[in-house]
Amino acid sequence: MAEVSREIHLRRRPQGMPVADDFELIEKPIPSVGPGQILIRNVWMTVDPYMRGRMMDRESYVPPFQLGEALDGGSVGQVVASEHPDYSVGDYVCGFASGGWREYQVSDGAMLQKVDPGLAPLSSYLGVMGMPGLTAYTSLLRIGEPKEGETVFVSAAAGAVGSVVCQIAKIKGCRVVGSAGSAAKVEWLEKTAGVDAAIDYKACGSLADEVARACPNGIDLYYENVGGEHLEVALDHMNKFGRLVMCGMISIYNANPDAPPAGPRNLINVVGRSLKMQGFIVSDFLDMVPDFFTDMGQWIGAGKIRWEETVVEGIENAPAAFLGLFHGENLGKMLVRLGPDA
Amino acid sequence: MAEVSREIHLRRRPQGMPVADDFELIEKPIPSVGPGQILIRNVWMTVDPYMRGRMMDRESYVPPFQLGEALDGGSVGQVVASEHPDYSVGDYVCGFASGGWREYQVSDGAMLQKVDPGLAPLSSYLGVMGMPGLTAYTSLLRIGEPKEGETVFVSAAAGAVGSVVCQIAKIKGCRVVGSAGSAAKVEWLEKTAGVDAAIDYKACGSLADEVARACPNGIDLYYENVGGEHLEVALDHMNKFGRLVMCGMISIYNANPDAPPAGPRNLINVVGRSLKMQGFIVSDFLDMVPDFFTDMGQWIGAGKIRWEETVVEGIENAPAAFLGLFHGENLGKMLVRLGPDA
Repeated sequence: MAEVSREIHLRRRPQGMPVADDFELIEKPIPSVGPGQILIRNVWMTVDPYMRGRMMDRESYVPPFQLGEALDGGSVGQVVASEHPDYSVGDYVCGFASGGWREYQVSDGAMLQKVDPGLAPLSSYLGVMGMPGLTAYTSLLRIGEPKEGETVFVSAAAGAVGSVVCQIAKIKGCRVVGSAGSAAKVEWLEKTAGVDAAIDYKACGSLADEVARACPNGIDLYYENVGGEHLEVALDHMNKFGRLVMCGMISIYNANPDAPPAGPRNLINVVGRSLKMQGFIVSDFLDMVPDFFTDMGQWIGAGKIRWEETVVEGIENAPAAFLGLFHGENLGKMLVRLGPDA
Repeated sequence: MAEVSREIHLRRRPQGMPVADDFELIEKPIPSVGPGQILIRNVWMTVDPYMRGRMMDRESYVPPFQLGEALDGGSVGQVVASEHPDYSVGDYVCGFASGGWREYQVSDGAMLQKVDPGLAPLSSYLGVMGMPGLTAYTSLLRIGEPKEGETVFVSAAAGAVGSVVCQIAKIKGCRVVGSAGSAAKVEWLEKTAGVDAAIDYKACGSLADEVARACPNGIDLYYENVGGEHLEVALDHMNKFGRLVMCGMISIYNANPDAPPAGPRNLINVVGRSLKMQGFIVSDFLDMVPDFFTDMGQWIGAGKIRWEETVVEGIENAPAAFLGLFHGENLGKMLVRLGPDA
């Protein structure tokens, strides 16, 4: 066992696009375990776009990260010491939104769930079987209400959430059009995820023209991960009674908070076309968790949900993995491997 | 009886803010009545902000007005000749969205409803008992879902729709804050409509500061008639799970369609605060019409719904009445009286 646990601190709050110097690798003694606690050696941690919001010093739906402390986020690890009656050494546990950005964590078990690496790969509990998958499943079904034969347009379609949205929409019988930022992502969407059309928005010239071509019957459901031009183009093509599921807007997360970018010039379409635009955070839909695990387990077992991971090795590279999210470096879930499975 | 029927044509499509010369007063012979038809002498016609959209040459949820023909819109009149079995001379009829902008109309009865001037004043069928009232009632209740104790913020609160929204929200037990554009409107809102606070957005200095002061617990439901700064300020103060009922955006109706104004810079709040922003047109909610007449009849009878009318006399002044909408000249419903009741 290692002598120290390394973790990533926020050295200062990023201005605009985060840079490597905003982060700091810190070594600490491995914490000891008290009564009712367990010590976990992390195997995987996740980096996610929403973490950018927590790096700002303002109240949001999650509290801001503190300077001089370890960052936080989802993690999967193995119990290496336990003074907790429910956990044994060797158990695998997942903190869906906690325990990450460090090699070892101590927990009282409250934020953890035991996971079985025999049922699904450990890393999938940070992806299709974890928060991104739950995000996609709940919001697409509850807000988006996809109906057979409808056209669904998904931005960041090759990302951790978007890729699951695309495939669930296909399962529900929709025509699915995805937008992504590289030829490799487009190929994965068309060949592996099985979407009806995929657009490389960086290379296509006119996103508006490509969306018009790929959605000849308009858009009934837009799944928003990006913001900016994508939202404006989607609003132009929405059909009456269309739904816009507002998951995120990664294109603006690094904007100057004092001069945020303007919103879509065609928001008035929400009025004339009877559109519903609705945001959420995944914890709004905790009542759907049991259905999520049932459905996703079946779909994965039947080969109907495929996924990709982009894996970065070592805690020291976690900041680079996070920065890579804003440069489109990930196909599917961006993950950091912190150590071996066992 | 007059020898001619005067009507208003669109001479050319307005560019930006409409002007008087965009309209033309035309005299025509009073039409004759064929089998199954009735001739109606109009008593009232309405001018409404949504008509601005129909003056553009583009498909929308209603077809565009044609040049060289009479404009159209809601009307109330009296049957003066009938070859229709269901209508007798002397009956009063309302075309909730048809038959206006002319002194006489011929109809086959399909778009008409008989109204009783003994139950409610004739003009109210173009206001609280007509399309604006139905618009307010259906969208506030169905999309807005106001709950007792919530804070409701209404823009254009002294207008035909907004004034009804304010009063229904009060009936539902909400704290109601209205924004309007003159001291007289603010006084009417506070003294007659009974809102909890009213803001004169033209005179208040900072709308953001006034809304913050008037909504100390934030906004749970924003009723949007205006767009622009109002929407941005509302988005800044929305509470988690807030609803934005998107009825219209009069502030942008006269914008250059090739360079529409930018949307709100804080649309991202829809994501983090789990907001629902939903548009509609009144015909989406026709299933609520029976409840509307029942509830409104009771509320009016109980003195719980008050209303104002701004009356312009004579068809020749209908364009001026319409233009006045965009300069805030109306308190309550803007109407044009075309002739005596009987």
